[in-house]
Amino acid sequence: MSVQAIAWSASGAVRIVDQRALPEARIERDLESGEAVADAIRTLQVRGAPLIGIAAAMGLVAGTRELRGAPREAFLARVHELAALLGATRPTAVNLRWALDRMLRVATATPGGAGGAAVWERLQMEATAIWEEDRAMCRRIGEAGLPLVPDGAKLLTHCNAGALATGGIGTALAPIYLAHGAGRRVEVFVDETRPVLQGARLTAWELVHAGIPCTVIADGAAGWLMRQAQVDLVIVGADRIAANGDFANKIGTYSLAVLALHHGVPFYCAAPSSTIDVALADGGGIPIEQRAADEVKSLAGRAIAPAEAGALNPAFDVTPARYVTAFITDRGVEHPPFRDGAPGGSGGV
Amino acid sequence: MSVQAIAWSASGAVRIVDQRALPEARIERDLESGEAVADAIRTLQVRGAPLIGIAAAMGLVAGTRELRGAPREAFLARVHELAALLGATRPTAVNLRWALDRMLRVATATPGGAGGAAVWERLQMEATAIWEEDRAMCRRIGEAGLPLVPDGAKLLTHCNAGALATGGIGTALAPIYLAHGAGRRVEVFVDETRPVLQGARLTAWELVHAGIPCTVIADGAAGWLMRQAQVDLVIVGADRIAANGDFANKIGTYSLAVLALHHGVPFYCAAPSSTIDVALADGGGIPIEQRAADEVKSLAGRAIAPAEAGALNPAFDVTPARYVTAFITDRGVEHPPFRDGAPGGSGGV
Repeated sequence: MSVQAIAWSASGAVRIVDQRALPEARIERDLESGEAVADAIRTLQVRGAPLIGIAAAMGLVAGTRELRGAPREAFLARVHELAALLGATRPTAVNLRWALDRMLRVATATPGGAGGAAVWERLQMEATAIWEEDRAMCRRIGEAGLPLVPDGAKLLTHCNAGALATGGIGTALAPIYLAHGAGRRVEVFVDETRPVLQGARLTAWELVHAGIPCTVIADGAAGWLMRQAQVDLVIVGADRIAANGDFANKIGTYSLAVLALHHGVPFYCAAPSSTIDVALADGGGIPIEQRAADEVKSLAGRAIAPAEAGALNPAFDVTPARYVTAFITDRGVEHPPFRDGAPGGSGGV
Repeated sequence: MSVQAIAWSASGAVRIVDQRALPEARIERDLESGEAVADAIRTLQVRGAPLIGIAAAMGLVAGTRELRGAPREAFLARVHELAALLGATRPTAVNLRWALDRMLRVATATPGGAGGAAVWERLQMEATAIWEEDRAMCRRIGEAGLPLVPDGAKLLTHCNAGALATGGIGTALAPIYLAHGAGRRVEVFVDETRPVLQGARLTAWELVHAGIPCTVIADGAAGWLMRQAQVDLVIVGADRIAANGDFANKIGTYSLAVLALHHGVPFYCAAPSSTIDVALADGGGIPIEQRAADEVKSLAGRAIAPAEAGALNPAFDVTPARYVTAFITDRGVEHPPFRDGAPGGSGGV
């Protein structure tokens, strides 16, 4: 069983697994207010583009529970206020904006005579729908990718595009969960994914939790592993996919794609079709977020490089379409160019 | 000026920089006894194949200072005892065995009538000779590689094959030191080199110490950097080179070589000619040391992966000769096949 990264608590709070504490401790938190959810997103207690969108939508609901007795206008004013707060937590996460816009459209579309309680109920249903659609999307990606994961398959993945990044069984990890569930033996090599170690900390943790054999490697060991014929296929997620199939994902993905091509190892990108941005002709238009040098130069509060040294810390890289064997989406196994899709995202932000 | 990794103290002790404390603190230790030197090698206070050999030879001298008044036979017995202790510290380091054998040959070749003091003086000269030969070897590698480092060059290196691994200015870093000394502007990108972080901790530290601009990157960022045309050439060290030019070096070197070939970036291996093992036909005969999983799964005492996850931790990989643009040795810029050479090593063990 894959871990459940988000849920409603019995009292209507947003229950999350605090991902900062993994893998050392599994801490569940019940977030009672919109502010608490905003704080959890900002401080990376929840991360992963789809999960952030779901958390924000659910936060809008949890944060307005107490206001159900208010008249519609006062209730809506608070909804907009909270949405602005939640939307400002991770400005680059496309799903966050998309989920909140969807919630606001539903709220303002309620009839003028409705009270706060009626609006809140619609919001509650919509947030749950966003979550359930994401779960279904993950499952469809898993079903599309399942034939690519035969019994005995040895896979390599990078970063975390799993249950901890979504409302369901993940994107890149979805075919692996379904193959394991179908009784196929799989072994997953996990790039630790420096500098933030989402592979070692999160992917390995959720695979262990599900009872799927996994082996963590330093990112630099991937090429040697492929040369030893230890990798049958690579599956990664995506943060944004251009119309021609170029895609952005966690730094290190491009190196892995080059190594896979060089060794004749199939390289798959698994993502919701909503991650495909047809307005973007190619990967050249994807801006690369440069993060703080300190993520590279220190670890667990300890300096691992001299203070005077520079550091380059691009959060993502862009892998050109020609390195990708196929895209695994909720629509099936696809090949670019892509002609439709809606804004979204599936990667491990 | 490059850092001096080893020296005699005024009183005849072995003065080292404790590399475990870098980059947070620069701690010099004066090792007064053979036991203290053995402990320093065993606990990685000194590392790097050439430096370990030099340290062991010097430790044999420092550890027998007090015995100079003894008769030859008693003195020699203690020399053999200490050599056995020093030789057992890092069984896989070829230079260690080679340096101690050389010291023992000198000691036993002294005339029968000589006292302990005369034997000690020969040992003292021999240890200094081993050190000075290593310094000269580093300089010759630097001179051979200097024409490959033009003004404005942007280089990428992996692990530590610098002053901290040798008695002089290093192997892979030697051409960089000489280019900087000649007034050429150079910029060095340093792979942090997981899992042990020799790049971030040691290479960046010694380059900063020498005033050479350097930028640390996560190992996974190297491919993206090459794609952005930010790397003019790659220089790495070697732990062992086979007759056909296949060579072993720190894990991650092979991935880097594939990436360099793919992007048309020249890829150089710099090492003493003594690293070439002509008895080894190709890289298939080089055993790969598997180190403890804990090096990958924890950092600075903190778990970064779940205890139940596996980890694969090969210390080295083998890069086939076809990926190497040229070898830079103390004999010049060379191409395999190699026909002579003596046992040795230059890498960042």
